[in-house]
Amino acid sequence: MQWLVYLSGEIHSDWREEIVNRSVAADLPVTFSGPETDHDASDHCGVRILGEEAEGFWKDRKGASINAIRTRTLLQRSDIVVVRFGEMHRQWNTAFDAGYASALGKPTITLHDTGIDHALKEVDAASLAVARTPEQVVGVLRYVTGG
Amino acid sequence: MQWLVYLSGEIHSDWREEIVNRSVAADLPVTFSGPETDHDASDHCGVRILGEEAEGFWKDRKGASINAIRTRTLLQRSDIVVVRFGEMHRQWNTAFDAGYASALGKPTITLHDTGIDHALKEVDAASLAVARTPEQVVGVLRYVTGG
Amino acid sequence: MQWLVYLSGEIHSDWREEIVNRSVAADLPVTFSGPETDHDASDHCGVRILGEEAEGFWKDRKGASINAIRTRTLLQRSDIVVVRFGEMHRQWNTAFDAGYASALGKPTITLHDTGIDHALKEVDAASLAVARTPEQVVGVLRYVTGG
Amino acid sequence: MQWLVYLSGEIHSDWREEIVNRSVAADLPVTFSGPETDHDASDHCGVRILGEEAEGFWKDRKGASINAIRTRTLLQRSDIVVVRFGEMHRQWNTAFDAGYASALGKPTITLHDTGIDHALKEVDAASLAVARTPEQVVGVLRYVTGG
Amino acid sequence: MQWLVYLSGEIHSDWREEIVNRSVAADLPVTFSGPETDHDASDHCGVRILGEEAEGFWKDRKGASINAIRTRTLLQRSDIVVVRFGEMHRQWNTAFDAGYASALGKPTITLHDTGIDHALKEVDAASLAVARTPEQVVGVLRYVTGG
Amino acid sequence: MQWLVYLSGEIHSDWREEIVNRSVAADLPVTFSGPETDHDASDHCGVRILGEEAEGFWKDRKGASINAIRTRTLLQRSDIVVVRFGEMHRQWNTAFDAGYASALGKPTITLHDTGIDHALKEVDAASLAVARTPEQVVGVLRYVTGG
Amino acid sequence: MQWLVYLSGEIHSDWREEIVNRSVAADLPVTFSGPETDHDASDHCGVRILGEEAEGFWKDRKGASINAIRTRTLLQRSDIVVVRFGEMHRQWNTAFDAGYASALGKPTITLHDTGIDHALKEVDAASLAVARTPEQVVGVLRYVTGG
Amino acid sequence: MQWLVYLSGEIHSDWREEIVNRSVAADLPVTFSGPETDHDASDHCGVRILGEEAEGFWKDRKGASINAIRTRTLLQRSDIVVVRFGEMHRQWNTAFDAGYASALGKPTITLHDTGIDHALKEVDAASLAVARTPEQVVGVLRYVTGG
Repeated sequence: MQWLVYLSGEIHSDWREEIVNRSVAADLPVTFSGPETDHDASDHCGVRILGEEAEGFWKDRKGASINAIRTRTLLQRSDIVVVRFGEMHRQWNTAFDAGYASALGKPTITLHDTGIDHALKEVDAASLAVARTPEQVVGVLRYVTGG
Repeated sequence: MQWLVYLSGEIHSDWREEIVNRSVAADLPVTFSGPETDHDASDHCGVRILGEEAEGFWKDRKGASINAIRTRTLLQRSDIVVVRFGEMHRQWNTAFDAGYASALGKPTITLHDTGIDHALKEVDAASLAVARTPEQVVGVLRYVTGG
Repeated sequence: MQWLVYLSGEIHSDWREEIVNRSVAADLPVTFSGPETDHDASDHCGVRILGEEAEGFWKDRKGASINAIRTRTLLQRSDIVVVRFGEMHRQWNTAFDAGYASALGKPTITLHDTGIDHALKEVDAASLAVARTPEQVVGVLRYVTGG
Repeated sequence: MQWLVYLSGEIHSDWREEIVNRSVAADLPVTFSGPETDHDASDHCGVRILGEEAEGFWKDRKGASINAIRTRTLLQRSDIVVVRFGEMHRQWNTAFDAGYASALGKPTITLHDTGIDHALKEVDAASLAVARTPEQVVGVLRYVTGG
Repeated sequence: MQWLVYLSGEIHSDWREEIVNRSVAADLPVTFSGPETDHDASDHCGVRILGEEAEGFWKDRKGASINAIRTRTLLQRSDIVVVRFGEMHRQWNTAFDAGYASALGKPTITLHDTGIDHALKEVDAASLAVARTPEQVVGVLRYVTGG
Repeated sequence: MQWLVYLSGEIHSDWREEIVNRSVAADLPVTFSGPETDHDASDHCGVRILGEEAEGFWKDRKGASINAIRTRTLLQRSDIVVVRFGEMHRQWNTAFDAGYASALGKPTITLHDTGIDHALKEVDAASLAVARTPEQVVGVLRYVTGG
Repeated sequence: MQWLVYLSGEIHSDWREEIVNRSVAADLPVTFSGPETDHDASDHCGVRILGEEAEGFWKDRKGASINAIRTRTLLQRSDIVVVRFGEMHRQWNTAFDAGYASALGKPTITLHDTGIDHALKEVDAASLAVARTPEQVVGVLRYVTGG
Repeated sequence: MQWLVYLSGEIHSDWREEIVNRSVAADLPVTFSGPETDHDASDHCGVRILGEEAEGFWKDRKGASINAIRTRTLLQRSDIVVVRFGEMHRQWNTAFDAGYASALGKPTITLHDTGIDHALKEVDAASLAVARTPEQVVGVLRYVTGG
């Protein structure tokens, strides 16, 4: 059996690559998906594909809605959702994904440093594992897909 | 018909009171609910009720889990969810609530200033109204519950 | 037991009043709901409550979204959905409501003249009764809610 | 991952072919489905397969019901639903499909000219992208299936 | 708490009255509902309310569909479904109701004589109690609603 | 796309073989499933596999429950359910399957002679096609899986 | 708002009474329900109501099934489920209820001594609060229903 | 069609191996899954992967939560769930799995000796087969997947 794992969150570090590379090295039966991680592409997809907007609010709306087509579909298809938070960003969309996955009954793994534990206590309490490093996430994936 | 409206988010300003007071003044058929808004009670409920913890992480876990009993039940019962974001706080739990409500098919109304529009674009795109003031929220409630 | 009946569709004739009046006269255990039927209020609610828009497309979006808060909630709560089509209007929102109700498993009653039978064949095939007059709708309601 | 896209709506122009051809040319991981697009076959399938009917109403019922076996099954299996409206037709079945897909939580993309924006405002508000050309639809599909 | 009990099946004996009367006498917190039990009214409701049909097949369709509005709604609202089979009738609609209730997760109680046990083995296997008399049905209701 | 079709009902004639053979001959993208059709095996599976029972009632219960493991799983996986009724048998399990499939939202096709139309009116009203011959069933399957 | 709380588990101590009495004393907006707690009535309800059985296995089946009508219905209606384990009993039905409630998305509170923590680790991990005394359970109920 | 069978329960005997071996020998179209059966790995996975804990309670929580990622996902994907109870262990997690599977509508097969029939009566009553030996379980699997 192949497991589908959705990687939500921070796009300014290489945590996704590390998880994918370690999983490939360990030959895990896992297929990864996630949002568009090119910040520029993600921000501008709406107006580039569907036409310009005069106001930033509606430009954002167009882009966020197209991203939602991708995000919701992949979240709904996934077996496990990993949500990564960094200390510097608000990442409300990542917390939104965590809530969305939780209501769908998807097991979630959070990945963040201890410095933001208190701020993330509700998200952590809704997850089944709190990891500090990509290596730990892969450890969980290896364990649950084993055997 | 009575409408149940859940008020999620910021606990450091009086937006809830303003919505409730204006709704009462307008005699709207609406019953409001929400999380515990006493910050101290919310943070310490776990250890006060169920016993002390040596580590902050597990103290937070105990409290966040008890709060989740309240929050999830009220979210699931509500007809409409209002999510309020301030500019100064991370409020990942509020964004989590928005995602949770969205996956349940609950209509959401977001309430925030324009300064954080871009950061909230995914949450706004999943909502059915973006309000800037409590008065506007009440305007929406008056309209949708009207005879 | 009280039955909740949602009346979707045409707002330019008095079919709703006739159904309500006949039901009241027959003392049926039915509570009716429906969309905002004041055309002007429905079209402008978005910008009146949440602020002006430069473009008609986004003005419409704001209004249609607020109307959706009302419409979806009432559809989800209803026991029976009546969908009324006139010969002169496109009423894509009414057909949308019929599809939405159908996917939720709500029994629907269509109300329209024979001249548009062929155009409405898919909507009729998804309904449990095709009525030609408000009186017939009330006849169905009287029968199904009877003692 | 292969994406399933259902193409609902207008059968009198070649928009389906253009979307399919452009997607094939771009080598997108997409499989398309849709209703029977041969108008004559669609209208007469009921009586041709299951026997003649004396009245047009029941002839339509038989055909529409058989078409529903196809339509509902494919809609339920799809990841994305594209709904195409032309200016000249009532297409209540297309709007019905949009409502049906929406209640199932399927992301929808609408495709229509600006001349009917106001009439389609509720359907557009329930969609995640409003495209004006088949090329734009393919642009959205390329973006969301990318990576 | 008030329990809603739907009484499906045979209309040619007084089993419903006996269950209701005994429940009233025992002051059980139960509200009963069921299909139209006037055979003539049930068979002819379609054409009487919505107009004559030339063919028996479509006359039956119209009537059965109106009855379904009542039956499905009450089944969906009920807490417990009692299905009564007699030895002399085919009662495919009663078995249909049992399957429908079962798929909805509603607990069912069957009521029939031993002579048809083998023919009803699948329906019995999907139920939580097999009663032989109305008195036994009331015994079950008294027990489960007690205390 | 491959369609899964469950064939429920009568086991004393060769209607299943005719549907399968005609579908194979027409090269339809359909995979068929159904209950155990060996009457003896179906009736005795419980006691043969799990041990004898002193009473017929519990012997039937054991067998019917094992058959339900097969039946429910295949019904839940199917895209279309065909239910076949003969004039001579009570087939309450077939009507149960029809109700079960209907509550799951599965499109059903009924197959029976006109002589039992009135007795099957509720089951027919919940189906999307009423066929009189296996050939007609295959005609529907060819149409809905076409193209 | 009134909260429905189901009290599952041990019937040999007075933990239910203590929770109820303390909740009444604190005037909490809570209504309690639970299984039949009279051991003898619970064990014999099947044969007393529906007739004797020669074998203990089927006597148990009859009783357990009737109890399930009560238990499942009340579990499905409840907002919160409390599961109480003692050190001396196997209480597989209580753990079954915990799993059942968990799959339905109901928040659960476990109540047990520390001596069985390790054996209950999976049940505790699926709950939102682990209480050691009835007083703590009431503390949680007071907190979550407050305000 | 390939059937997915989840094997829950006792880890101190070789019942799993016997079911798998007999199924392979009989060439059944079945794929098996189950929890981690290495007791030490299962108990310590939390702290080994995610870091040490000072208290046993939280060590257990970490491990049980990771195991839940595996268990819930495999349970949700399975077609049939086999639950095995031994006489010597409390196995509350197995009974939890049975309740979880039952609420999801998964058919369950219980496997245990007669000595614990009374204690397991509620779990047995929620199952579709009670087997006494692995050979009987394979007998059921052969029958339901046959044909």
